Amino acid sequence: MAQSKSPAVVLLSGGLDSATVLAIAKQAGYATYAISFRYGQKHSGEIARARALAEAANVAQHIVVDIDLSVFGGSALTDKSLAVPKSDSVDNIGSEIPITYVPARNTVFLSFALGWAEVLQANNIFIGVNSLDYSGYPDCRPEFIQAYEKMANLATKAGVDYTSKQVGQPIRIQTPLISMTKAEIIKQGLQLGVDYSKTFSCYDPVTISDEQRDIDRLAFNELACGHCDACLLRLRGFEQNGIADPAAYVP
Amino acid sequence: MAQSKSPAVVLLSGGLDSATVLAIAKQAGYATYAISFRYGQKHSGEIARARALAEAANVAQHIVVDIDLSVFGGSALTDKSLAVPKSDSVDNIGSEIPITYVPARNTVFLSFALGWAEVLQANNIFIGVNSLDYSGYPDCRPEFIQAYEKMANLATKAGVDYTSKQVGQPIRIQTPLISMTKAEIIKQGLQLGVDYSKTFSCYDPVTISDEQRDIDRLAFNELACGHCDACLLRLRGFEQNGIADPAAYVP
Repeated sequence: MAQSKSPAVVLLSGGLDSATVLAIAKQAGYATYAISFRYGQKHSGEIARARALAEAANVAQHIVVDIDLSVFGGSALTDKSLAVPKSDSVDNIGSEIPITYVPARNTVFLSFALGWAEVLQANNIFIGVNSLDYSGYPDCRPEFIQAYEKMANLATKAGVDYTSKQVGQPIRIQTPLISMTKAEIIKQGLQLGVDYSKTFSCYDPVTISDEQRDIDRLAFNELACGHCDACLLRLRGFEQNGIADPAAYVP
Repeated sequence: MAQSKSPAVVLLSGGLDSATVLAIAKQAGYATYAISFRYGQKHSGEIARARALAEAANVAQHIVVDIDLSVFGGSALTDKSLAVPKSDSVDNIGSEIPITYVPARNTVFLSFALGWAEVLQANNIFIGVNSLDYSGYPDCRPEFIQAYEKMANLATKAGVDYTSKQVGQPIRIQTPLISMTKAEIIKQGLQLGVDYSKTFSCYDPVTISDEQRDIDRLAFNELACGHCDACLLRLRGFEQNGIADPAAYVP
């Protein structure tokens, strides 16, 4: 009976990390409520992956929220005038905040998850941030998550019962990947049966026609570039597990 | 020269409080960047007020962000199946969290403001919360604001320079109304020249036709109900200042 399970909200981008987090939350026994965002990304192929992953994981509900972070610009992921940086090496990743950083993105995403958690009376929110093998974004750090959790418990009815002044069931921001390498994340996901061919990480994909997709027998219309930070980290993670990344890359 | 002024983001709902906060931020010498939200409210007359107020205050920029908080339901302000409670007295306000509470609304709004502040390199965000004469919402409490500010400084590039590990110019959440009564807010706003006929507070207005609006010589299409929490608090505030509320009410 799904109703007897405790509900948890899971941020699901359609990427490798959030797909793994969804599998972890499900394995832990939660009824999973997945939330994805169309936030003005230049490409939205990740939404198609999020839908496929949510369906495969048999989530209790999946919602896609439309928000427009491009209204302020300032990131290469949402601002068409800025180019995504490319490289052949992971060596330069993480030394400074890159232009692919989207201002306050995780703060915004967690805030929507918090609102939904409150309506669902869910005390757990899962997010796939990790502080290793990432791109140097400030809103992926453990101290950010701790501060967010503290704020969330003051922001909501769940955190404090305002009538009785009693502290209610606290809201927890669960970050099971926070101290894992990309290789460790992939290893755990494979053990939990995550189909990584349905995930998508690239910051700058090439879109192909439906016809070409069918000729190449692919499930989605985007090919990963193989050279942005996200592709480089992902490819290394699979390589360290001694297996090929099942995602489709530009030949 | 507007460019030499320090930028500040101001949350502008079109209500009495945020209109006053905008005037305070302007008076303090900031270049004001006003942000409003269409968040799935049942009525959106407040956006028309926000535009009129932003124009009257000669803001540097005003953006209206579309987000859909109604996707989770759970509030009488966004869920059409829930009715707004009415009363003839303010005596019952604040004793428990009312159904007009929108889950995580201020958290979501502040998070968008934070993203814009980061792009603008603004260190100040103004919000018109107050902990007196309000409707008992948890996300209006001083301890929530303090926790939000701490989180915001960990979430962003502004808070910490990630390359040098130096702490940057901190982000401040400015809440000039936090310990003022509604009567005090109105008094200060009148001193600063706020035109309260352009503000709108009602949770459950009556919409009139353009024709009726013109016959009645009104600037907007919504009449305040006069009996929801927001109307009751506002009317008392004007009464305590010994003047009539210039907003249009249902006769």
